[in-house]
Amino acid sequence: MSKMKELKKIIVNKPLKLDCGETIINYPIAYETYGKLNEKKDNAILAFHALTGDQFLTGINPVTNKKGWWTYLIGPSKPIDTNKFFVICANVIGGCMGSFGPSTVDEKSKKPLGTSFPVITINDMVNAQYNLLDHFKIKKLFCVIGGSMGGMQVLQFVSNFPNAAKNAIPIACTANHSAQNIAFNELARQSIMADNNWDKGDYVNKEKSPDKGLAVARMAAHITYLSQKGLQEKFGRKLQETDNINFGFDADFQIESYLRYQGSVFVDRFDANSYLYITRAMDYFDLTKQYNGKLSDAFKNCSTKFLVISFTSDWLYPTHENKDIVIALNACGADVGFIEIISDKGHDSFLLDLPEFLTTIKKFVDANY
Amino acid sequence: MSKMKELKKIIVNKPLKLDCGETIINYPIAYETYGKLNEKKDNAILAFHALTGDQFLTGINPVTNKKGWWTYLIGPSKPIDTNKFFVICANVIGGCMGSFGPSTVDEKSKKPLGTSFPVITINDMVNAQYNLLDHFKIKKLFCVIGGSMGGMQVLQFVSNFPNAAKNAIPIACTANHSAQNIAFNELARQSIMADNNWDKGDYVNKEKSPDKGLAVARMAAHITYLSQKGLQEKFGRKLQETDNINFGFDADFQIESYLRYQGSVFVDRFDANSYLYITRAMDYFDLTKQYNGKLSDAFKNCSTKFLVISFTSDWLYPTHENKDIVIALNACGADVGFIEIISDKGHDSFLLDLPEFLTTIKKFVDANY
Repeated sequence: MSKMKELKKIIVNKPLKLDCGETIINYPIAYETYGKLNEKKDNAILAFHALTGDQFLTGINPVTNKKGWWTYLIGPSKPIDTNKFFVICANVIGGCMGSFGPSTVDEKSKKPLGTSFPVITINDMVNAQYNLLDHFKIKKLFCVIGGSMGGMQVLQFVSNFPNAAKNAIPIACTANHSAQNIAFNELARQSIMADNNWDKGDYVNKEKSPDKGLAVARMAAHITYLSQKGLQEKFGRKLQETDNINFGFDADFQIESYLRYQGSVFVDRFDANSYLYITRAMDYFDLTKQYNGKLSDAFKNCSTKFLVISFTSDWLYPTHENKDIVIALNACGADVGFIEIISDKGHDSFLLDLPEFLTTIKKFVDANY
Repeated sequence: MSKMKELKKIIVNKPLKLDCGETIINYPIAYETYGKLNEKKDNAILAFHALTGDQFLTGINPVTNKKGWWTYLIGPSKPIDTNKFFVICANVIGGCMGSFGPSTVDEKSKKPLGTSFPVITINDMVNAQYNLLDHFKIKKLFCVIGGSMGGMQVLQFVSNFPNAAKNAIPIACTANHSAQNIAFNELARQSIMADNNWDKGDYVNKEKSPDKGLAVARMAAHITYLSQKGLQEKFGRKLQETDNINFGFDADFQIESYLRYQGSVFVDRFDANSYLYITRAMDYFDLTKQYNGKLSDAFKNCSTKFLVISFTSDWLYPTHENKDIVIALNACGADVGFIEIISDKGHDSFLLDLPEFLTTIKKFVDANY
């Protein structure tokens, strides 16, 4: 991946004390920007990516040669129009697209950090990304936006920097990772660590990597991103090629083939150790606990205007968890709108071409700019 | 497991043509009975077990030394009172508790069959178990009952043998395995087959077995057996020992520890190849397709009285799938009752001490005897 070397990066030379106690300095944050920062520097949007996302949210990702993950929402003449807005997106720390993470090569040992990388949190992720505001000399962002883990970063960012964003759009997320979501993440981690090739995280310079374990982890996650109804409508019991089952363990059903494919392509673009660290950060996320059990205190000092969005068929971050955020925002008198979008597409809805969702965001950003 | 040799068994000397085309003969069916068959032989109940169950549904399982899986429902003075009824339960073919399965030792090679065991179906399972009626010289069972895969066997049994059961109680099941359920089963199979120790199923006489892969498969299944609300109430974000997270990949949360424990104890009592074969049989189950798209035709010749039961928080076999069975039964004029039990315990509800559920079954069996 020689293209990895060409990624835009800042090297942060300000020390950051992580939640685990370690302090990091001179670490890279890889980022991408879309559109142009205007003279007043009041048109900047910071978008946060989800678990397996990266900084390439629109256009073509130069590393994977695939479309960016938020092409329906962001780009020239898209609902968030990059002819008008300047959109910044950074790879989270712990990630594997150029930012400081377990695949970062240690200067001393010349080996990837692996599991000697510190366990990081959502709080650490946003604190690291905040350095991009200094880099671009932006005093106040027009908006922070993100779905899923990106939404958690939105909440944490506004809480940490109450005057740094005029607007905030947390989508399909939660203020505290639920037991079921911890359970699915733990399943994924156990699957990776069960793979003999994982080798306690020390696989990067070796011939074998824990692809099988990572693929199973991705398969599990993929099921949770879709709704039962959506799966039934798209796949149901449709068979692969013939009218008949083959009485074997190859993929007979289209859903099996689909999941195997999702697993196999994922391992080409994602690092197993990053998967461990980022899921851990999600599980540790508990904004309510950070504020001693009173979530509204997380937002009490901010003047940010919020738009909270959930989807009817999202069972990973269901509407009631998103509503808990709205309740807390109302409890501290924040300016907050809430919409539950009707969709059969499950948690994945925030990445898809859903007109009601896209129009809602377009109207919100245009009306508030 | 010397106790395996003491299991009650019949050796079926009648050939059985399996759905895959193979014919089997002289194969073992391991079973257990509870209570006493009366002279009229009209008090017999055939109970079918679920994916990981076995013939030991009440009392102490002599192999695992644990309580039977249906002790709340069946036993002396229990809702299905074995002072009154004679309950038979057999290990399904494909299983690992003495019936013909992938761990059965091949007479010629003296090695376990492994993946040379034929791929079996729910239809094959009930056809094999039907031989127990001949063994006990029972012409008509008082009742067939089962939950989950046991419920599928109830439906298949009544469809295959319309005059063999006076009553039928399918619980928390479906007439056609859904895409989401196929997806979870495929995830489990991929996890087992990803384990290097699986070795294409040829691990039984070796030192290493695919315990890690099987444990991950069990963890995934376990999440689906519980409801989100139930998980949240039982575990939430409760930590293991201390008030603080440990910034590592050990089990910090109680839910993680619980899942790891469920995985680890499961591998001691279950065979990985059996898990592959039985999940495959579940995925292949499509009673509607067997009757050319008209589910009611599956029941058109039977005089059986039905009680269909579902649970509000069961997202694996949700109420609407159970209702489809009721609709089909009504469409062919069958005698059918239906109840949806309110429970936060998810799919596992049918195994638990839920008074409304237990009382419903007690009243049904007592009223119809």
